Amino acid sequence: MTRSWWGWGNVEDAVRGGELQALLDRVRVLMPGDLTDHEPPDIASLGLPRPRVTAPAALAGLCSADPADRAAHAHGKAYRDVARNLHGDLRHVPDLVARPRDERDVTDLLDWCTREGIAVIPYGGGSSVVGGVEPRCADHPGVVTVDLGRLDRVLEIDPTSRAARIQAGVLGPQLESQLRGRGLTLRHFPQSFEFSTLGGWLATRAGGHYATLYTHIDDQVESMRVVTPSGVSESRRLPGSGAGPSPDRLFLGSEGTLGIITEAWMRLQERPRWRARASVRFGDWTSAVAATRAIAQSGLHPANCRLLDTAESLINAGVSVGGGLLVLAFESADHPVHHRLERALELCRDHGGKPSADTGGPAREASAEDSSGPDAAESWRSAFLRMPYQRDALARRSVIAETFETACTWDRFDALHQAVTQAARQAIFEVAGTGVVTCRFTHVYPDGPAPYFGVYAPGRWGSTVAQWDHIKAAVSEAIETHGATITHHHAVGRDHRPWYDRQRPDPFAAALTAVKTALDPAGVLNPGVLLPAP
Amino acid sequence: MTRSWWGWGNVEDAVRGGELQALLDRVRVLMPGDLTDHEPPDIASLGLPRPRVTAPAALAGLCSADPADRAAHAHGKAYRDVARNLHGDLRHVPDLVARPRDERDVTDLLDWCTREGIAVIPYGGGSSVVGGVEPRCADHPGVVTVDLGRLDRVLEIDPTSRAARIQAGVLGPQLESQLRGRGLTLRHFPQSFEFSTLGGWLATRAGGHYATLYTHIDDQVESMRVVTPSGVSESRRLPGSGAGPSPDRLFLGSEGTLGIITEAWMRLQERPRWRARASVRFGDWTSAVAATRAIAQSGLHPANCRLLDTAESLINAGVSVGGGLLVLAFESADHPVHHRLERALELCRDHGGKPSADTGGPAREASAEDSSGPDAAESWRSAFLRMPYQRDALARRSVIAETFETACTWDRFDALHQAVTQAARQAIFEVAGTGVVTCRFTHVYPDGPAPYFGVYAPGRWGSTVAQWDHIKAAVSEAIETHGATITHHHAVGRDHRPWYDRQRPDPFAAALTAVKTALDPAGVLNPGVLLPAP
Repeated sequence: MTRSWWGWGNVEDAVRGGELQALLDRVRVLMPGDLTDHEPPDIASLGLPRPRVTAPAALAGLCSADPADRAAHAHGKAYRDVARNLHGDLRHVPDLVARPRDERDVTDLLDWCTREGIAVIPYGGGSSVVGGVEPRCADHPGVVTVDLGRLDRVLEIDPTSRAARIQAGVLGPQLESQLRGRGLTLRHFPQSFEFSTLGGWLATRAGGHYATLYTHIDDQVESMRVVTPSGVSESRRLPGSGAGPSPDRLFLGSEGTLGIITEAWMRLQERPRWRARASVRFGDWTSAVAATRAIAQSGLHPANCRLLDTAESLINAGVSVGGGLLVLAFESADHPVHHRLERALELCRDHGGKPSADTGGPAREASAEDSSGPDAAESWRSAFLRMPYQRDALARRSVIAETFETACTWDRFDALHQAVTQAARQAIFEVAGTGVVTCRFTHVYPDGPAPYFGVYAPGRWGSTVAQWDHIKAAVSEAIETHGATITHHHAVGRDHRPWYDRQRPDPFAAALTAVKTALDPAGVLNPGVLLPAP
Repeated sequence: MTRSWWGWGNVEDAVRGGELQALLDRVRVLMPGDLTDHEPPDIASLGLPRPRVTAPAALAGLCSADPADRAAHAHGKAYRDVARNLHGDLRHVPDLVARPRDERDVTDLLDWCTREGIAVIPYGGGSSVVGGVEPRCADHPGVVTVDLGRLDRVLEIDPTSRAARIQAGVLGPQLESQLRGRGLTLRHFPQSFEFSTLGGWLATRAGGHYATLYTHIDDQVESMRVVTPSGVSESRRLPGSGAGPSPDRLFLGSEGTLGIITEAWMRLQERPRWRARASVRFGDWTSAVAATRAIAQSGLHPANCRLLDTAESLINAGVSVGGGLLVLAFESADHPVHHRLERALELCRDHGGKPSADTGGPAREASAEDSSGPDAAESWRSAFLRMPYQRDALARRSVIAETFETACTWDRFDALHQAVTQAARQAIFEVAGTGVVTCRFTHVYPDGPAPYFGVYAPGRWGSTVAQWDHIKAAVSEAIETHGATITHHHAVGRDHRPWYDRQRPDPFAAALTAVKTALDPAGVLNPGVLLPAP
């Protein structure tokens, strides 16, 4: 497999053949426009500037100045990253890509960069969609991207406490394959799973598999080890503690600005043995939301509780519904879960929901390994994993296809949903004339949902980045002014900064600035992320 | 009702009559010694120093210099506090006790103290057991204890999101009574419930009712409002967010060193309608621990899962068991819970547990209002609420009676339990010749338990504080060196500092110091707590 330098995932997995044809057919119906394919540029043609810094001899072996390497590390994987790559617009490129073999190398790299004032971009899988790994560091004499991909091992497993000490650079599949033999799993499955790392999840407070209860990676952390320019911080392995503010919670979400996470003790689970699922159709959106809220507040704790609106159902699950489609799943390693599904379906029926035929009777109880036939949930799931690849195929054809997400309390959801949809449609109208806005819930809490929006619009080749930026700014304003968060699980990076700054309490900004100065006095770590570049 | 200035709770609720007789009979059997009763001293006889500071005219009306008020605010409610009060040893007394009526008053008080360099002790219910409210602030020209008791209202309820905006000074019962009419509850019931406040719970990361899932108050916080000397910090009401490190998590556990919490939006729950419980006897401790671990890792999420060792069962539940007594309860506002209890009992039986006769058949399903007859769980529960009062009755009679708690991963528990018990017994032997050490789990997590220890020993009048301090230092050393936390839910305060300092990662200490300097540049807030006094 070959990783794509410009787009998502592996080159071999790109959309082609029948899948491409079907995708384009759908797009043609929804958004007439010029779908000419634009090949990604040749890296040699990009004319990358020569590296401005040279690693000292002891570190030279860890560092690559290869243009393909540097180009592949210049951007994350947001739509605007892919679109800029396709246009050959690589304004900010790291001078070197360093690949430490161990924590000692991380410390040495940080020491060198601190000494020389060289910016350091900590890099896991590079799947940031918020400019988190993009070296916009004009004030520094150089930039080194520290790719932690070699720190990819599970170092220790404690089966009694069900926890493991894991290196930060491990990708999702590598991590799970090292746990599988012991019957354990981290069960953290973000959409980026294949191409994102444990360290990246921790640094960005990633959202994972579970729709309820264990949503963010935060709650799965037992302890963390972080190399900062002022020393190594290692918290104690504890199942719970009340000893002062949590050290881990300061580094969780610090997005590489305070230190480089090298390893963590993570809480694991046994692999599920019981599973029950269903999808439920609703005739109107309001009832669908009410049912979802009832389930979120029931204490039933579904593993999946994903509400798709009509457009989302149609485009990504191939299901036509009047109001919404709720995809439900319950799982357990210890006991049957059909009682919980039955009660959840009862709550759905109370709100007019109709469980789909194949699961509407007595809830199916199946072993987790049992791969049951395709249903709405299955269709949606495979679509889910193909989405980034399809997004790239569309980006090559000038189609704007991107998502954004937030969270708010239930009392504010209707107003937020309306405002965001309206802002998106207005902005789409201004820049593209026509398009589609979809909504789904990725996670739900007793006190509110995490809505996830999709935007699809025909763009103009050469202008898609500016068109998307206009839409993104409009929806971000709506999110901010309606009391929601600028990000539930995509992080802040550089792109969300204007709205994050308004959302963050001022005294906390002062506190974070003070911490930054204490731990990274030279200001070399990921400048411009979370805080203004020094 | 009259609050006791020297001991726990209300004067009218003190142990007397038959309860006192039974208590002393038990103690005489276990620990022969001199049980002469010592009356608490008269406050007038204490000879408190005159207040060193005078409030400016605008704030004078909020401030009390009454000796009884000052004496009652000098200490928390640990055994060593009560014992010192009984001995008339009040070395550190606030100069004034201020009672702000609103947040404006809090700000004005903080401004005045910051200007004059006067130490400020934020004070909720005063139930600290770690010296958290004791004004050991020799380097300051004066000390003002800010008692938030007037900020006692639920300001707003959002029934849709099930959340409420609540003032920080509200005591547990006041809080619940304001929610009851809406069918909602915070369901945070620490042992101190009657005499501790929301703000205190937040500042100390208190542990509450639930044995699993929602243990600390931390997870029930939607947003917080904190007055710092550098401005008011108010986080956004959100069900979840990934926007940078969590602002709330910095103030949670800050123990009054960074600001004064004035209000918070808290997540609520509906009052439980279904409940099922049982107690299970085990013939040996190892099996009891194994069964408890199995339940903690099962995902069954019991509301109560309290394992008592033989001494704890006998002394506090009046039950004689060979190895341990596990008290289990499941609760839900939405659905029956007997399936979960049945599975938990099955796990217990797998480990040799015997469910007690009255609940061992098909699990009882009862409405939550149904007050079922006394059983082992009930006996234990009433004993639980009387414990602090009994402790005080014993303290008057030179008996050392105190608890301490920690948490560790399951793999370390056996060694920790053995080391702590051994250290406690050795220290008891050294200072008191004989005594009893008990253990129970207050909370359990998939990756470890939170063990809670009781120590009972005959003291010598005049020496009980020194005797206890010797025991406490010995067990704290054992906790620290065995990788556990110096506190799971009692906070750090001034008394846990030596061990907290060793447990806390150095870079995090530097970070916290930087935050303190940024938010409280004059260093007036609770000096000596968490960090060295400036």
